[in-house]
Amino acid sequence: MADVYGERRERLRARCSAAGVDAALVTAPSNVRWLTGVPSAEALLLTRDHALLAVAHPLRDRDDACDELLVPPGQDPAVVVASTAQVEALGVEEHDLTVTRHRAVADAAPRAQLRDLHHSVEQLRVVKDEQELNCLRVAGEIADQALGELLESILVGRSERHLAMELERRMVDHGADGPAFPVRVGTGDHAGRLRHLPGDRRVEEGDFITVSLGACYRGYRASAARTFVVGLAPQEWQIELHGLVFTAQRAAREALVLGGSLDDCAQAARRVLEASGHPEVLAEGVGHGVGLDVEEEPRLGSLDLWPGEFGKLENRVPVTVGLGVTLPGRGGVRIEDTLVVRPSEDGGAELLTITTKELLAL
Amino acid sequence: MADVYGERRERLRARCSAAGVDAALVTAPSNVRWLTGVPSAEALLLTRDHALLAVAHPLRDRDDACDELLVPPGQDPAVVVASTAQVEALGVEEHDLTVTRHRAVADAAPRAQLRDLHHSVEQLRVVKDEQELNCLRVAGEIADQALGELLESILVGRSERHLAMELERRMVDHGADGPAFPVRVGTGDHAGRLRHLPGDRRVEEGDFITVSLGACYRGYRASAARTFVVGLAPQEWQIELHGLVFTAQRAAREALVLGGSLDDCAQAARRVLEASGHPEVLAEGVGHGVGLDVEEEPRLGSLDLWPGEFGKLENRVPVTVGLGVTLPGRGGVRIEDTLVVRPSEDGGAELLTITTKELLAL
Repeated sequence: MADVYGERRERLRARCSAAGVDAALVTAPSNVRWLTGVPSAEALLLTRDHALLAVAHPLRDRDDACDELLVPPGQDPAVVVASTAQVEALGVEEHDLTVTRHRAVADAAPRAQLRDLHHSVEQLRVVKDEQELNCLRVAGEIADQALGELLESILVGRSERHLAMELERRMVDHGADGPAFPVRVGTGDHAGRLRHLPGDRRVEEGDFITVSLGACYRGYRASAARTFVVGLAPQEWQIELHGLVFTAQRAAREALVLGGSLDDCAQAARRVLEASGHPEVLAEGVGHGVGLDVEEEPRLGSLDLWPGEFGKLENRVPVTVGLGVTLPGRGGVRIEDTLVVRPSEDGGAELLTITTKELLAL
Repeated sequence: MADVYGERRERLRARCSAAGVDAALVTAPSNVRWLTGVPSAEALLLTRDHALLAVAHPLRDRDDACDELLVPPGQDPAVVVASTAQVEALGVEEHDLTVTRHRAVADAAPRAQLRDLHHSVEQLRVVKDEQELNCLRVAGEIADQALGELLESILVGRSERHLAMELERRMVDHGADGPAFPVRVGTGDHAGRLRHLPGDRRVEEGDFITVSLGACYRGYRASAARTFVVGLAPQEWQIELHGLVFTAQRAAREALVLGGSLDDCAQAARRVLEASGHPEVLAEGVGHGVGLDVEEEPRLGSLDLWPGEFGKLENRVPVTVGLGVTLPGRGGVRIEDTLVVRPSEDGGAELLTITTKELLAL
């Protein structure tokens, strides 16, 4: 196990070395975890021949290749490890450190010049190893299980908030560390919205209901969204709208091809939506990488909206692919999956969230 | 309602004016919420005669005194509102903005000189109004209700994680927005620890069980911790340890006196613990303010550990008062309450979390 983390640290060292940086102070929590395997550590100082991890309590499972530095209560772990750095150029994560902490780090290492590591660790994290993909696979299964159980229960009369909590509990019962993000349940005119916070609205007969959920398993987060109808039979407009989103999301999934552009999925979905007069809904793109964070690089957007995202889809990159369309005052449909980019000779993209996308009437 | 927020913004304007700052760019989420009442907004630009709030979607309940600026997806709300600032000195929250965002704000307002607002808004938030205290009172009641129900249920054989999720669900059932922080349940040798994350350990006969929980109600967060024994009768060492923590926490609560020093509560508890040979346990202090954030100013620590905390306890300041003692390998006891500092003629500190602190055998 320690080998995995030691190897990752070597890759970061190589990057630093190429950039003329003597040591890296890593503070973004998921980056520290990815480089050490320690979920609770808050700062890592990586020099050419040494790794020093700031911890609040001595670790139970020690990694011999990584020394621990106990941080006194109330002190900033980044500042404490930075004060040990005897280097000229110290790389820091400017996208993570606040201005105040950055200044404190500079004061603690007065002889060092602080340089931005940019998103070096995040970039190393984009392509996953098989152990990471296994964790994501389990996370996807757990979300599927919780969703499947919900579909078998009575929904009418229960509040969005209550359903969201129940889904979170069920995921934990199935072995999740916890939800990957607060579960979102939207019913009636809340259905289909991307970031709707569950409220007190209760499920009614005839409602659309959208569930966005994800499990966190050993730190790895997979995400899915489904929309169903409550009651015996969906109405005509519900069938139509669901069919549209289903078709557009399928087109996006099918465009997830190794070597393709980060733009392809959004373009494919947009072609379907434009043909039906809903071109505006992809403003937020159709997905993004997942892993230790629920939103990682790359971003699957349209190039006109996200200029500069010129990468290609690489092997072993897990991403979400999802989209929604809502009608003002009537609610809408959102469908999302987590998939892993794979070569076509291996069968193409691997779907991690397999719960049915049919328009079930619950 | 709008008056409350308008008045708060006037107080911030007065502070800015005194500091020679023309406009304030507020980005810390709780600060934005406190100044506008909008839970989901991400940045507020406050000039001498204007308030501009960055929102992702048009608000349903508009505040006429505060204009809305719709932020396109993928753009930083702070940068978008900063680009409208025609000022010389722009105050920003350096403890909230990352180095990267700070730079983007500077680029968006090239004619402005960026100045640190320090913790201006946090300081204004320390003393609560009665409406805020009412929300905290309800939050305390909700935590009490959830805890009370747990005490009546069967605990043996259930996992820490499962109990924690159940408490979160119960708080939501009783009207909470959600938990104030992830509920912590520790059993056996995990009991009594400050930041134990609930795991797969199942409750056994004879265990100590420590529950730390808090509800969030309309954004306001109260917090409590209790320790009980599972089984028919506690053992001698459990009775002793519980009695010690109970006495020390009571001493700390009784030291919560209007006009007292921020050091008093910790000193009072320390005197009790030192007499019994446990002086080390107050390294993290005995409490802190609560409100829209679960950890706010002031910090109730010992002056030797938190130099510079020379304030006095003020009227209408809600704080947590709690401490724990653990014995290696055997677990321990943690007891915490949320109280509001009040003058002695009004009966002294008001206790918001009233669940019994007796050593119940469950």
